Amino acid sequence: MHSGERKVGNGSSGAIAHRLAAKQQEISVTEFFEKNKHILGFDSRSKSLIMGIKEATDNALDACEEADIPPEITVTLERMEDEVFCICVEDNGPGIVHKMMPNVFGRLLYGSRFHALRQSRGQQGIGISATVMYGNITTGRPARIMSKIEGDDAVSWRMDIFIDTKTNRPIVTNDEAFVWEGKDHGTSIRYYIKGRYITGKQSVFEYLKNTAIVNPHAMITYRDPDGKTFVFERATETMPPKSKEIKPHPEGMEIGDLQKYASATQQKTVRAFLKNDFSRITDRIADEILSRAGVSGEGKPPKLTREDCKGIIDAIAAVKIMAPPTDCLSPIGETLIKKGLMHVLEGLRPDYYATPVTRAPKAANGNPFVVEAGIVYGGDIPSDGPVAILRFANRVPLLYQQGACAITKAVESVDWRRYGLEQRGGRGIPYGPAIILVHIASTKVPFTSEGKEAVANLPEIQNEICLALRLCARNLKGHLNKMERKSKTEAKFRIVRELLPDMAGKVSEMLDRPRPDLTGTISKIMNVVWIDSRVKKEGKKKVSVLYTVYNYTTQERTLRLHAKLPKECVNLSLFTDDRFLDMNDEGKVSWEISSLPPSRTAEISFELSGELADTFSPEDVYVSGINPIIVMGAEGLPGDWGIKGLEILETDTDIEEEEQTEDTEEAEDLGDE
Amino acid sequence: MHSGERKVGNGSSGAIAHRLAAKQQEISVTEFFEKNKHILGFDSRSKSLIMGIKEATDNALDACEEADIPPEITVTLERMEDEVFCICVEDNGPGIVHKMMPNVFGRLLYGSRFHALRQSRGQQGIGISATVMYGNITTGRPARIMSKIEGDDAVSWRMDIFIDTKTNRPIVTNDEAFVWEGKDHGTSIRYYIKGRYITGKQSVFEYLKNTAIVNPHAMITYRDPDGKTFVFERATETMPPKSKEIKPHPEGMEIGDLQKYASATQQKTVRAFLKNDFSRITDRIADEILSRAGVSGEGKPPKLTREDCKGIIDAIAAVKIMAPPTDCLSPIGETLIKKGLMHVLEGLRPDYYATPVTRAPKAANGNPFVVEAGIVYGGDIPSDGPVAILRFANRVPLLYQQGACAITKAVESVDWRRYGLEQRGGRGIPYGPAIILVHIASTKVPFTSEGKEAVANLPEIQNEICLALRLCARNLKGHLNKMERKSKTEAKFRIVRELLPDMAGKVSEMLDRPRPDLTGTISKIMNVVWIDSRVKKEGKKKVSVLYTVYNYTTQERTLRLHAKLPKECVNLSLFTDDRFLDMNDEGKVSWEISSLPPSRTAEISFELSGELADTFSPEDVYVSGINPIIVMGAEGLPGDWGIKGLEILETDTDIEEEEQTEDTEEAEDLGDE
Repeated sequence: MHSGERKVGNGSSGAIAHRLAAKQQEISVTEFFEKNKHILGFDSRSKSLIMGIKEATDNALDACEEADIPPEITVTLERMEDEVFCICVEDNGPGIVHKMMPNVFGRLLYGSRFHALRQSRGQQGIGISATVMYGNITTGRPARIMSKIEGDDAVSWRMDIFIDTKTNRPIVTNDEAFVWEGKDHGTSIRYYIKGRYITGKQSVFEYLKNTAIVNPHAMITYRDPDGKTFVFERATETMPPKSKEIKPHPEGMEIGDLQKYASATQQKTVRAFLKNDFSRITDRIADEILSRAGVSGEGKPPKLTREDCKGIIDAIAAVKIMAPPTDCLSPIGETLIKKGLMHVLEGLRPDYYATPVTRAPKAANGNPFVVEAGIVYGGDIPSDGPVAILRFANRVPLLYQQGACAITKAVESVDWRRYGLEQRGGRGIPYGPAIILVHIASTKVPFTSEGKEAVANLPEIQNEICLALRLCARNLKGHLNKMERKSKTEAKFRIVRELLPDMAGKVSEMLDRPRPDLTGTISKIMNVVWIDSRVKKEGKKKVSVLYTVYNYTTQERTLRLHAKLPKECVNLSLFTDDRFLDMNDEGKVSWEISSLPPSRTAEISFELSGELADTFSPEDVYVSGINPIIVMGAEGLPGDWGIKGLEILETDTDIEEEEQTEDTEEAEDLGDE
Repeated sequence: MHSGERKVGNGSSGAIAHRLAAKQQEISVTEFFEKNKHILGFDSRSKSLIMGIKEATDNALDACEEADIPPEITVTLERMEDEVFCICVEDNGPGIVHKMMPNVFGRLLYGSRFHALRQSRGQQGIGISATVMYGNITTGRPARIMSKIEGDDAVSWRMDIFIDTKTNRPIVTNDEAFVWEGKDHGTSIRYYIKGRYITGKQSVFEYLKNTAIVNPHAMITYRDPDGKTFVFERATETMPPKSKEIKPHPEGMEIGDLQKYASATQQKTVRAFLKNDFSRITDRIADEILSRAGVSGEGKPPKLTREDCKGIIDAIAAVKIMAPPTDCLSPIGETLIKKGLMHVLEGLRPDYYATPVTRAPKAANGNPFVVEAGIVYGGDIPSDGPVAILRFANRVPLLYQQGACAITKAVESVDWRRYGLEQRGGRGIPYGPAIILVHIASTKVPFTSEGKEAVANLPEIQNEICLALRLCARNLKGHLNKMERKSKTEAKFRIVRELLPDMAGKVSEMLDRPRPDLTGTISKIMNVVWIDSRVKKEGKKKVSVLYTVYNYTTQERTLRLHAKLPKECVNLSLFTDDRFLDMNDEGKVSWEISSLPPSRTAEISFELSGELADTFSPEDVYVSGINPIIVMGAEGLPGDWGIKGLEILETDTDIEEEEQTEDTEEAEDLGDE
């Protein structure tokens, strides 16, 4: 070891230790975030402007949903100077109690949702007050808050708020009651902020449009700096199922968490504590945990030692406990995934919408989460660039930090070459005519920073995203295979149907003999029932579908045809066909074609109208009541319609085994390189 | 506007507002970070282990440097259970005063460097206490701190520390004086932490190795879980120049910042405030700012209104103010960049080390920063994958979150096709046999999160990285062009030198005439002085260099040869050659070859030994004293050796104009997509 070569500066190292000690001091959380504005998302002027609108809009949506009020939100953006804007966001939420207004808007780390395990957009009590702070700092002006609560008291309140960064406390410079004409209840926040107004993918308009897509129960009005007004109308009158608050799930809990819960619990015994303070712990499970841990259930929870807690944690890992309840989550569902994809397409017409996947809920660090994914492919989606990735978390579109996001890392870690997309070396963002959408809903989305722009790379979450993507991709691959088979079969059939009569004609001409009728011969050669499916765009939101069934066999045939239609797009044309049998709640439709003679065709046609009409893939058609071996152009109906198309073919284990090289461990490490 | 369709939940919306108000509460910063562990870098077990070591090592290095003590750091990692480790990091720093120990290690947002504008690894007062907290939570055990300060008092202190997450205050469970045998001064921290031990690119070993490379003044000893000891010896006895604390630079300051400074200043007048509290504001500049802003210099700073502050901020933007002082920064420099690159190569031998670039300091949000970049190319670096990117910030290697980092985004935004690397569409990480290193030194590196893994995408910083990369890449391109020209010229010469005599031989044979001597003819045809440069690896750290000068002209020639050698690798073999003229401090060497007759050759050979020997590119050779037009294989000496090779060829403006399509604005937006 070296040891002697110390160079002494001004003072011995002992003096330095004392000098350093004198400099030690507390840092307020506001000072911290002021100095680290980029962690809040304020790292460029254009992003700051979006953040300003996003935080207020998230808050407005959360407030309305919490009060079961269909949200009506008006966002107004005014340009004051070249790079100074006034943002005003008004909602019809329940309003904020007068005395809480200063803390909610003027103090960081202050809020109502931090300790609650339920899905909401805002959680940390930072976003809106950080935005107020950023406005204060960049323009020197306060935020003006107006709020009205429903009730006897017709008075509304308005106040101007600064944040004191030294103390993290609000400074209210103006506080007055007023009459808010025509307003029953709601909140409005107006602040001035430095920002840059840009157009394109990361614009305010795009952010609000994407927000409207995944929040179809909200009506959002946007007045842009040029005075133009855009109204994103409500697409449904139904509020999303209200997410419930749950107790923490024991899985993934750390010793320290358990110690903290144990010292704070109201429960008198350890058994009661385990059973009542956590979700999915029954009496039986509590007993199993206690006996494995060798801990008495009758002791007082605060008396649990570190060793007791460790024992309990180890026992929890060993005991099988039900997955967390899911009613705390609100996935967006198949229809909204398709609509989200359709909106980005902006009129482009893809070939195929892969069946969107909504995974079963899982837990990460005790927080339940659900992953959803969708893919569109082909048509006139540009094929020469990397695929576009649309990211959503708790119904909020994520516009920035794509590279940092677990969603992107999951996309990059899938070997897309197996699923028909181009990808150099089987890693990285694939190339081709596709758009991928992923939504994560959770009681706690682990964002990489307070700007809430990217999901952190937790192994459990990344794994679920990968599985959702692979399921979706398999569906796509199945379609691509089907299309390839179809085009090959069609080519063969064309030869038989066209060339054979042609040849026969030529031969009979040469021999000067009458042209023979080959219909029977062709049927004998082919010996299939051929189902041709076509879709034709009739207008902006209208398509017509035609199934033609050719009986190229030598017998009369009876069969049923099945397809899953976007239910909301179905119109009268479907039901007037007397071969129509029934349609269930999910839009699964059956027709019966009975006694189709040899060499004859039957046609089923109907129209679909409405936004989702475009997402229908007629190739996904199934047959029953006939041996599927002699059917070309449709698959045999898999067992029962009650089972979803994909799940019956692919279990997680299949998917996981298929790509064993990409297990969680590797994904975690590689994803982060 | 819709308005009627409110569905009332349990209670009117007014009741809900009151219910929500009751839930509003303060969140402690510790609770916040406990729930958002991933923001601190604790998002996977393998990363958590690295974080545990990194935070303690950063602190140890900072403490030693602050006290001018050449660091001696010992890192011990013991495996307690499969995924539970004990980390111990001991340094020879100045030690920590007894009464400060609890707050430094047991309280978040508490530290000495937060308000100081100078380059240091730790800044926020979060890292080490967050690690203590993570250890507490995952294992239920306290951190044990031991510290000794130099001085009369021979007593050392040791204490066990927990963090109370509810209050963000330390809980000391054990506090005792002891005698630390053989220790003059220093600190040791030992904690238990859940983690996963992995090997490879993101291992503890790699982290410490990379740390040692960019901190050659430190000696780092690592004992791994298998009991193996690795010693990264000190490579230099010289401490890096101590970074100085500076005053804030006025550029990029926001109104709110100015208001805060003005209300806290000790200065009596606004003029004195501007002049004394900011860097680079002289009397003249203060007057210019005040007159432009229309603000009196004699007023009291706390009396400045918002409008005054706005005027001053606008004036600052309009007045030319010197760049921030640079003595607060400590770049790593050319030699360490090359060494860093060499270490990653692990014995691979590249063709070329592009001249590393250290940019002039710039400021972002008032914080000075310097960007440095280096590239190695070719040889046996694998050419079929994306290039490797090595990222450093304030001498700390960044191992995770590459996708989120401004360095990566800058690499992706450069069109590398112009510089000889493969890159689809001119965007994204290029492919090819290259490794890119970037270091950012700043008084405040804007990390995207508290895990300090990625640099946030501030436009000013990304722009500087792009410029550094392009300068480096141009140098690479110059080399590639030179190599291409050389190989073409060589091919032509081979034809002349070999084919011409061959043809003459054949012809004379056919004509049965004596074979003519073509030397003079060849010289006439060629009419060049040809310089051939070769380098041969002689051993692990030894190369021999050979310059051969062919005089293919018809006259006697005298010329000087110049090359820049890695000075520390030069040995006696260089000086024994009597054509050697001189070598300057930077390793620039000259030789003189006098009166070389036509058709004759001269050889200059020498050896280089030492670590950097491999980085020498013999092709970068220059000539003087001869018209460079008749020289092949070397360039004319550009003006004067005093001017660096690249700077004279490329100014920022050239570079910026060259790629005008990639201006800051676009880089900012695209980088974030």
